[in-house]
Amino acid sequence: MSISSGQQGPLYLGIDGGGSKCRVVLVTADNQLLGEGLGGPANPLRGMKVATDSILTATQQALTAAGMTFNDMARLIVGAGLAGVNMPQYFKLFSEWKHPFASFHLTTDLHIACIGAHDGADGAVIIAGTGSCGLADVKGQLLDIGGHGFPCGDNGSGAWFGMQMVHHVLLHKDKLAPQTLLSDLLAEAVGSTATLDIVSHFMHATPTIYAKYAPLVFVAAEQGDATALQIIEQGAAYINQIALKLFELQPPRFSMIGGLAHKLVPYLDAQVQQQLTPALAAPEFGAIWYARQQQTLLHSAQLAIVN
Amino acid sequence: MSISSGQQGPLYLGIDGGGSKCRVVLVTADNQLLGEGLGGPANPLRGMKVATDSILTATQQALTAAGMTFNDMARLIVGAGLAGVNMPQYFKLFSEWKHPFASFHLTTDLHIACIGAHDGADGAVIIAGTGSCGLADVKGQLLDIGGHGFPCGDNGSGAWFGMQMVHHVLLHKDKLAPQTLLSDLLAEAVGSTATLDIVSHFMHATPTIYAKYAPLVFVAAEQGDATALQIIEQGAAYINQIALKLFELQPPRFSMIGGLAHKLVPYLDAQVQQQLTPALAAPEFGAIWYARQQQTLLHSAQLAIVN
Repeated sequence: MSISSGQQGPLYLGIDGGGSKCRVVLVTADNQLLGEGLGGPANPLRGMKVATDSILTATQQALTAAGMTFNDMARLIVGAGLAGVNMPQYFKLFSEWKHPFASFHLTTDLHIACIGAHDGADGAVIIAGTGSCGLADVKGQLLDIGGHGFPCGDNGSGAWFGMQMVHHVLLHKDKLAPQTLLSDLLAEAVGSTATLDIVSHFMHATPTIYAKYAPLVFVAAEQGDATALQIIEQGAAYINQIALKLFELQPPRFSMIGGLAHKLVPYLDAQVQQQLTPALAAPEFGAIWYARQQQTLLHSAQLAIVN
Repeated sequence: MSISSGQQGPLYLGIDGGGSKCRVVLVTADNQLLGEGLGGPANPLRGMKVATDSILTATQQALTAAGMTFNDMARLIVGAGLAGVNMPQYFKLFSEWKHPFASFHLTTDLHIACIGAHDGADGAVIIAGTGSCGLADVKGQLLDIGGHGFPCGDNGSGAWFGMQMVHHVLLHKDKLAPQTLLSDLLAEAVGSTATLDIVSHFMHATPTIYAKYAPLVFVAAEQGDATALQIIEQGAAYINQIALKLFELQPPRFSMIGGLAHKLVPYLDAQVQQQLTPALAAPEFGAIWYARQQQTLLHSAQLAIVN
């Protein structure tokens, strides 16, 4: 790959760092894709060592794919959207990271998702994956909602659906709720119908583990299961609420992303469904866009000082 | 305390081992209290080392209070009701413990609570503390409900109320729910009105930590706060459901124990409140009763073999 390793202009790296994995893309100044990489969790809540290792691992993969070496890290202009850095203490921690890049422009995973979805233009986005949250970025005004974490927040997310499923199955097992297909589906997935086995299985479950079971709620609902439909109604009501709140800023575009988005959409209010527009690019490309924008701002500021 | 240390008959130790602390009582054959002790968590879910250390620490305290020494452990006939041993794997772990006692009779914390509440007679009990669960023990039939752990189970418990409080405050902060007194009370308790500070505060919160905030929901409800009343209605509905299910066995007595019980009672259905009878003894004395009963059964079985 002599073309890429011979690149003389600036190179941009976009990082989408979530709670379970981190994706990076490496592009040229004119947006040609040179390489991609995948690492572990890049959320500083799990510790800075884990987060920065994940980022460096994924970056190394992208550089290797581009025929470049570790030393080329120093050439990269990086945009990073990381889960957790909406919390000031984690933003500060990451801002102080002695990174090996030419520059490192930090924002949240939600922000780069919104930028990516609308290619940097004004718009709103809801992420419904392991967690749930929404952001509108309209005329310089930012409004973010939800994303407070499981179990106090993140209603309507994968983790929330999985937890609700287990909760309702246990109610049924205790004969406090009617028969539900969810009990059969969970028993099959866990490999046992025994209450204690189910309790054991989820005893130390993380949001990511709960989220794995979320699709089963939609399977049951498609077969008309009343309990599943009731759970989805409740989860969708929360996502609807986020959407309507974001619409108050009158975003010209609105996208939903995340593993659960396409499953949830049919259960949302018609007025929310009608506003949906497809996401134009993945969050990691939103991170590239953010890096370019920040770099330009920085350059303008430097020019202003010089003149 | 030469009276107690000079005790020649059998000595009984009762253990009430929960997820946050463990209480023991030491009594003579004719039920005279010789000493008491308090230790850390005795729930094997946190590891056998922690659990057995807690039990031994509390036992040592009780022996010291009785003027006895560590060596007297070998004289004790022990009844232990421990949280978590309803799970077969933890029951097995604790059954295999090389304990230093004369004998060790193991059952659940819920079981000894029921025995204690009704002095060994038939009855039903609901524990509403950090967790929530119920047991009826009538004509040799045992029915236990709930107690599946936070956050999938334990509705109407302290942990559940605390979590619901945080959830509703975050909804209000996101302007997805109306103003509630809970926001003011939580801000005061946490020392900040900022959403991110609240999220930070509860980020790694255990059920015990959530449960500490449960009383605030009742404070707000007493002042007529609609959100607090709605949460209590929902929690009380679950506790009612447990009670009605237990009543199917027609228990002659019914008690509620645990830190949240007296707060919940006024919100329960009239028919549930009417059935309430005071608990006759604390769970650790239920554990003593259980030890005596098991010892007698063992003795009868041995006599049967001899004859």
